[in-house]
Amino acid sequence: SEEKLSKTKALAIFASDALSSTAYATEEILLVLILAGTGALTYSIPISIAIATLLVIVATSYRQTIRAYPNGGGAYKVAMDNLGTLPGLVAGASLVVDYTLTVAVSTAAGVAAITSALPELHDERVILAVVFVILLTIGNLRGLREAGTVFAIPTYFFLVTFGIMIVVGLVRVTLGDISSVPHQDAITPGNEALGLSSAGIFLLLRAFSSGATALTGIEAISNGVPAFKEPSPKNAATTLTWMAGILTVIFVSLTILAHEIHVQPSETKTVVAQIAEAVFAGGPMFYIVQVSTALILILAANTSFAGLPALASVMARDRWVPKLFSFRGDRLGYSNGIMVLSAASIVLLIIYTADTHKLIPLYAVGVFVGFTLSQGGMILHWRRCREEGWRRAMVINGIGAVSTGIVAVIIAATKFTHGAWLTIIAIGVLTTIFYNIGRHFRGVQTQLALPEGEQVPQLRVSSRHTHPVLMPIDDLNRATAYAMSYARSISNNVTAIHVTDDVDESRELRARWEHLVPDVRLIVVESEYRSLLGPVLAYVDNLDRADLQDMVTVILPEYVSKWPWQRLLHNQSSQRLKKSLLDRPHTVVVEVPYHLK
Amino acid sequence: SEEKLSKTKALAIFASDALSSTAYATEEILLVLILAGTGALTYSIPISIAIATLLVIVATSYRQTIRAYPNGGGAYKVAMDNLGTLPGLVAGASLVVDYTLTVAVSTAAGVAAITSALPELHDERVILAVVFVILLTIGNLRGLREAGTVFAIPTYFFLVTFGIMIVVGLVRVTLGDISSVPHQDAITPGNEALGLSSAGIFLLLRAFSSGATALTGIEAISNGVPAFKEPSPKNAATTLTWMAGILTVIFVSLTILAHEIHVQPSETKTVVAQIAEAVFAGGPMFYIVQVSTALILILAANTSFAGLPALASVMARDRWVPKLFSFRGDRLGYSNGIMVLSAASIVLLIIYTADTHKLIPLYAVGVFVGFTLSQGGMILHWRRCREEGWRRAMVINGIGAVSTGIVAVIIAATKFTHGAWLTIIAIGVLTTIFYNIGRHFRGVQTQLALPEGEQVPQLRVSSRHTHPVLMPIDDLNRATAYAMSYARSISNNVTAIHVTDDVDESRELRARWEHLVPDVRLIVVESEYRSLLGPVLAYVDNLDRADLQDMVTVILPEYVSKWPWQRLLHNQSSQRLKKSLLDRPHTVVVEVPYHLK
Repeated sequence: SEEKLSKTKALAIFASDALSSTAYATEEILLVLILAGTGALTYSIPISIAIATLLVIVATSYRQTIRAYPNGGGAYKVAMDNLGTLPGLVAGASLVVDYTLTVAVSTAAGVAAITSALPELHDERVILAVVFVILLTIGNLRGLREAGTVFAIPTYFFLVTFGIMIVVGLVRVTLGDISSVPHQDAITPGNEALGLSSAGIFLLLRAFSSGATALTGIEAISNGVPAFKEPSPKNAATTLTWMAGILTVIFVSLTILAHEIHVQPSETKTVVAQIAEAVFAGGPMFYIVQVSTALILILAANTSFAGLPALASVMARDRWVPKLFSFRGDRLGYSNGIMVLSAASIVLLIIYTADTHKLIPLYAVGVFVGFTLSQGGMILHWRRCREEGWRRAMVINGIGAVSTGIVAVIIAATKFTHGAWLTIIAIGVLTTIFYNIGRHFRGVQTQLALPEGEQVPQLRVSSRHTHPVLMPIDDLNRATAYAMSYARSISNNVTAIHVTDDVDESRELRARWEHLVPDVRLIVVESEYRSLLGPVLAYVDNLDRADLQDMVTVILPEYVSKWPWQRLLHNQSSQRLKKSLLDRPHTVVVEVPYHLK
Repeated sequence: SEEKLSKTKALAIFASDALSSTAYATEEILLVLILAGTGALTYSIPISIAIATLLVIVATSYRQTIRAYPNGGGAYKVAMDNLGTLPGLVAGASLVVDYTLTVAVSTAAGVAAITSALPELHDERVILAVVFVILLTIGNLRGLREAGTVFAIPTYFFLVTFGIMIVVGLVRVTLGDISSVPHQDAITPGNEALGLSSAGIFLLLRAFSSGATALTGIEAISNGVPAFKEPSPKNAATTLTWMAGILTVIFVSLTILAHEIHVQPSETKTVVAQIAEAVFAGGPMFYIVQVSTALILILAANTSFAGLPALASVMARDRWVPKLFSFRGDRLGYSNGIMVLSAASIVLLIIYTADTHKLIPLYAVGVFVGFTLSQGGMILHWRRCREEGWRRAMVINGIGAVSTGIVAVIIAATKFTHGAWLTIIAIGVLTTIFYNIGRHFRGVQTQLALPEGEQVPQLRVSSRHTHPVLMPIDDLNRATAYAMSYARSISNNVTAIHVTDDVDESRELRARWEHLVPDVRLIVVESEYRSLLGPVLAYVDNLDRADLQDMVTVILPEYVSKWPWQRLLHNQSSQRLKKSLLDRPHTVVVEVPYHLK
């Protein structure tokens, strides 16, 4: 019933996450290389080519997933279907971590784009980032989600501005018509020799790991195949190829430009901003590039707010998270998911002072764990259902799985102490939580199942003539009278119980009672301290022992007041009694609401 | 039934609060006077005599209260009985504030006694004070309260050690056999001239206000008259006279000793510690005095933990605080009171860095507000019930009320900016809260009252044959079957409702349902997003409109699991449904618990 997406529109919607990573990927490579001195920056070219190769491999691999899962094949689904429970849950956990980090990293990078243009805001970047996340949260809580066409604008705006910048830049570089940028706040180069020593290779691998964040978001299309116009798998695959091509071109071009203009990473100005400044010699285009960078990054952050509830819904139907999340229309589950995502990314932004460079090491490892599990799952998928061309597809996915697996290990090893440890722990903890929730629900399901052909068990069934109903009362007033009339309507065996430490008061109550409700038995218990709980619980025990046939029902009047502060003043004793009775077998507590004016 | 107290035992139990204030009262006077130079310290003698006079007036005044209120006449009761609601509530609020500050001040002073002996602990005093409060809290939560004889020991230990110190000190001073103490960490004297200028008089009044804290706790006996052996009012009055005499002697003697030994207030050593050091030339007696000071102060702090629940219980019976607090045997009300008292005093100790001098300005104003209202109430009491000697009693209470009233104003004025403002605001806020709670409860009582002779209103009464019972179900399993059997036992008109977005699943459910519970109607509602709430609420509305006679009952299975984390996984939808239905008229929600293994 919904409108299907054309390829150009789908590209805009699904590509923002992937394309936006070019805003920081080159910079992350340079930031590692600078540790070995300015001379080492030249290694950025071979590293970016290696990453581009990886990108082509992964994109080709995901084309196979699109073919096999025309209804959407996220890492969780593919891993769960083909590799089994544990890999599936690990994939789910790594996706949750990724969604959180996408919000944090994209927002931090978006703010960096803004503060590169407006350096006076540099010290306020944590506050700015938190405000952006809060705005996204509010927007999504109010049902912004996929606003379609509006979301296409930033992506194409980004493609146009970056296209112009790259073309103008490369032309000017070729003509020798461009000067190096002044190195404002440049990060001090190290003087580590970058030879073939193990330290040197480690540093190159670290630089590669940092740059590999260029691949984040590339899997988005494989999740959303059903949103494409028919033939959706074919259109999705084509769009993926376009996206991968554009991403490769932008990323490699930016790296070449950075190298040719001798950009050095700086504390206050992003590499992209330095390129834009050099290419356009300042001017309005510099600001336009910064705005388009910030916009696509905020849009990328927003994709997580749609992605997480979708994942939660799938996982809830498999009962790995509470069922609540399976109702996508359900405000509570949806809102809770959004709030948790928002809170977690705000915490990350505050801890890591909204600094993209500090967040990146946490980011890449989860992404590549997801890639590996997804591609690995595809290998088994092809082995099982041997469709036409399954051998070729299996080889492609095999290459994908092996490459991304190796990269995942490289990232985990080179970034471990820089923050990847935290991601690994988070994935482990989430996996454990999902597993335990799932085990609990499966246990409950078994317990509750009614075997085929069995009659509905009647357990204890109450008879209307004997069903014992107990009503603790503190006074005879309209609320207790109301509850009493409810009690009498469900049973002929109602007893009222009054706990007191005041003999005169109870005598008076009994007189009124016998006059007004002569047909209901009233028991008065004298308790020195007027502790309600003890006598009532003792009486329920007695009823229960006396009659092994019936359920016991305890009826309590519940005062419903208008204002929340007034609610604090009522029902405390009832609430406690209810809590104490909850663990009793065959006992039901009924609260009869009485609305106070 | 409880054992009544002899005068000596009663003195020990009721006097700790009052006597313990001698540990800091002299010091507080000197701390103000030192602002006008060391020469001004000599004014401590006339000031202490003025305070001693006030003490005699207040004690004599309270003897009249004891006579008039043999069942205990706290400031709240006396003010409420005689002055009316608002003064009564102000008295109650000032007592609550006093109890909190007694804990904070006494603990801070107790810790100061310890750190005077062990200066290396001076920097840890906040932590020490907080630990003491926590220990008292735990003790009281576990039912320490009035442990009788044990509590007599610190008081008599204090009387003996201070008696020895005062006698030895005065003898040595008379013999000229004592040298001034070295002024360690002495507070720098000011050089303000202390003439008859308004500033000078203001300073003297401030010093007087500070010293007036010596009177705190003097009212304790008037609260506890019934605890004395018969004739209890006479014994209580005698004990009060003793206590006031002892208090006066100790306070004036300590002030004289401090003056003669040229004690200067110091940052790290209390005035009492300096006196003890000079009198005993260090030695073991110095340490014994510090221990006995600390012990009586901690005991004084403990009296609040018994006093607050007693006050709350009286105020709850008058319905100014929730009824919960009226059950003194009730753990929840009692525990909540103790916890709030503990938390508030810990906050004060942390804010004011467990510094007695900073806390004192907050303390005195509430105490004297209580005195004034109590004595003022007594004037009206005597005017009303003209017992024998009422004129004399009224004059005595009149003098008491006027003196304490003037002192209250002096304290509020001279200490306002030093912290008294906070106390005044706290008393105002608490009074407003009590008043609004009371008004709410009185409104409810009127609403609920059943006028004499009126029949119990039946409102809507359910008939067993038509009483509509609705049961939303998500599955047919043991828990829903159990709830269903309960539903059938209370009505013949049960409908099950199943909300789904999955037609196949609902078809299967209907087949099982018709096989297993053919006698109960099942309604399947297709809702695209499986939002449970909307369809169920709509159906309840329909039922309600269709039958104006009966209540509507909604039955929900409630899963009871063993571990708290598992409880988070169940019942969320039910809880929300319950919440939405709470505001509906004539609708009762029944949760039928199902215990998971």
